[in-house]
Amino acid sequence: QSEHRSRLRRLAGVRSVTPDGKEIALEANISSLKELEVALSSGAVGVGLFRTEFLYMDRHQFPGEDEQFEVYKAVAEKLAGRPLIIRTLDIGGDKNLDYFEIGEEDNPFLGYRAIRICLDRPDLFKTQLRAILRASAYGKVKIMYPLISSVEEVRAANRLLEEAKRELQAEGVPFDPNVPCGIMIELPSAVTIADLLAEEVDFFSIGTNDLIQFVLAVDRMNERISRLYQPFHPAVLRMLRMTVDAAKRRGIHVGVCGEMAGDPRALPIWLGLDVDSISMSSHSILPIKERLLHTHRSDSIDVLNRLWECRTAEEAIRLLESFRLSVE
Amino acid sequence: QSEHRSRLRRLAGVRSVTPDGKEIALEANISSLKELEVALSSGAVGVGLFRTEFLYMDRHQFPGEDEQFEVYKAVAEKLAGRPLIIRTLDIGGDKNLDYFEIGEEDNPFLGYRAIRICLDRPDLFKTQLRAILRASAYGKVKIMYPLISSVEEVRAANRLLEEAKRELQAEGVPFDPNVPCGIMIELPSAVTIADLLAEEVDFFSIGTNDLIQFVLAVDRMNERISRLYQPFHPAVLRMLRMTVDAAKRRGIHVGVCGEMAGDPRALPIWLGLDVDSISMSSHSILPIKERLLHTHRSDSIDVLNRLWECRTAEEAIRLLESFRLSVE
Ligand SMILES: [Mg+2]
Ligand SMILES: [Mg+2]
Repeated sequence: QSEHRSRLRRLAGVRSVTPDGKEIALEANISSLKELEVALSSGAVGVGLFRTEFLYMDRHQFPGEDEQFEVYKAVAEKLAGRPLIIRTLDIGGDKNLDYFEIGEEDNPFLGYRAIRICLDRPDLFKTQLRAILRASAYGKVKIMYPLISSVEEVRAANRLLEEAKRELQAEGVPFDPNVPCGIMIELPSAVTIADLLAEEVDFFSIGTNDLIQFVLAVDRMNERISRLYQPFHPAVLRMLRMTVDAAKRRGIHVGVCGEMAGDPRALPIWLGLDVDSISMSSHSILPIKERLLHTHRSDSIDVLNRLWECRTAEEAIRLLESFRLSVE
Repeated sequence: QSEHRSRLRRLAGVRSVTPDGKEIALEANISSLKELEVALSSGAVGVGLFRTEFLYMDRHQFPGEDEQFEVYKAVAEKLAGRPLIIRTLDIGGDKNLDYFEIGEEDNPFLGYRAIRICLDRPDLFKTQLRAILRASAYGKVKIMYPLISSVEEVRAANRLLEEAKRELQAEGVPFDPNVPCGIMIELPSAVTIADLLAEEVDFFSIGTNDLIQFVLAVDRMNERISRLYQPFHPAVLRMLRMTVDAAKRRGIHVGVCGEMAGDPRALPIWLGLDVDSISMSSHSILPIKERLLHTHRSDSIDVLNRLWECRTAEEAIRLLESFRLSVE
């Protein structure tokens, strides 16, 4: 066990590339500067998801622009040129703030959340966008909007981003004028119009957790039906393919940042589909890298071709599981 | 006003066919025998959705097989050979029974509902299936399962249906051994694997209300975000097309039974896609028929071709609205 752990440790500095030469960036999902240290020691080549809502929690009022800027800057600097995707505020659903009253909702997952709140409250949103933009002068920062369902939402968010840029420029505050701006693909609607959304943004990041919940109409926290939360349901797999295809056709970067990214059974899917990056909990990075170093992309493509023939999640899991064991 | 109403009345017995010869069955959504009378006097050529949950409400225990049978039989007989789609129990979500404890759920729309309950409680489900089968000896009865997300669920439900058939046969009770069996397409997963589901069933009925909610992750009863509930969102429109295409390719009947079916703006969509039937509240049937009698299918196809170019719900509505006015 500890021998395996020290063998894994030695992989931290190794490039994550398959035996037949396909490289895929292994990034970390983090919520704080402290978590970044663990991520870096696990060999993360960037942060694919910086959850900013934790900055907003356990306090009595919204954090100001300077306070946010200091945190984003510190993370960006510590990353020393590695990419950092900062996701704008993703509260609501099951994450609420004591000082921001959303009110009772019958179905909070289908409610007032994330970008919906931000577009409703441009004051809050622009404060965060300004803080992120200012941090972009100190590293390879990218901005990501959560819970996007339509082209209009992206455009509305980008209008506020442009406004923030103009303000900073007028104030003479430095920022990266070309900071890449992307979206989470985590609603079925976003998958279905991924081709249209790809024309509006610089990158996609597939948020499998929410996506699976909405595609299957299953709250995975609800024990009575959690068995119906099936990451390998053929509908989910097809939606992954549709999203990646749309990104590739437009030539934009596509990553994955839900829990599926750290699931060893899913690795041939990312390799076969040719996603650019997968972002996961730090503790998954080295185990996934170890597998990746032994998994051929050509074999992954074969598995994927057979995966499209599966009619049920059970068949898909059986196929992926037997492939996983064959690589062990 | 009353003149228009009596003009509409005179259309009750008229065939619902476009000037260029495309017929589409206008059916009714009903919840009781009483509602059927209104439906028939409005010229409904069948019942596209008989909601059985109302049989289960306002009482203290589940209705027995005989009690259900009598109701289904009465409706089937009154329809005198016109088709009757009986939807199996669709409780949960926002419809609960006093005597059946589902328990607190954080997101009931993504919870223990409909077919999920029925497959979990084969006793309840088979009682209903037996009652429906018995009624099938008295009319053109079809069975429909709600909230289907996967091939396995259809197969599990059909296994119980076969069991019920075998029992009735052994008991010498008459029923239609070829009673058609279909599903509601109301989850994004069902749309995405519609080609696979089409091989398991005799017909599809698209339930737009739930489908739109899940595709867009919007609880339409939640006032803070109900503006995001967009029936004419391009993702919704594409999902309608995917579903109809899958049904056509397999040669099975496809209908629509959500509120969109009664929306005059949506009529060119059904005509253009060539759906077989649309089922709606009785009060919408004659107004929709009046429009249909003046709407060419060829024009609808033109509108549809332009609809696929729309990038937002707003653009789609503008197009459909101007077409609607041009037909007036
Ligand atoms: Mg999410
Ligand atoms: Mg429904």
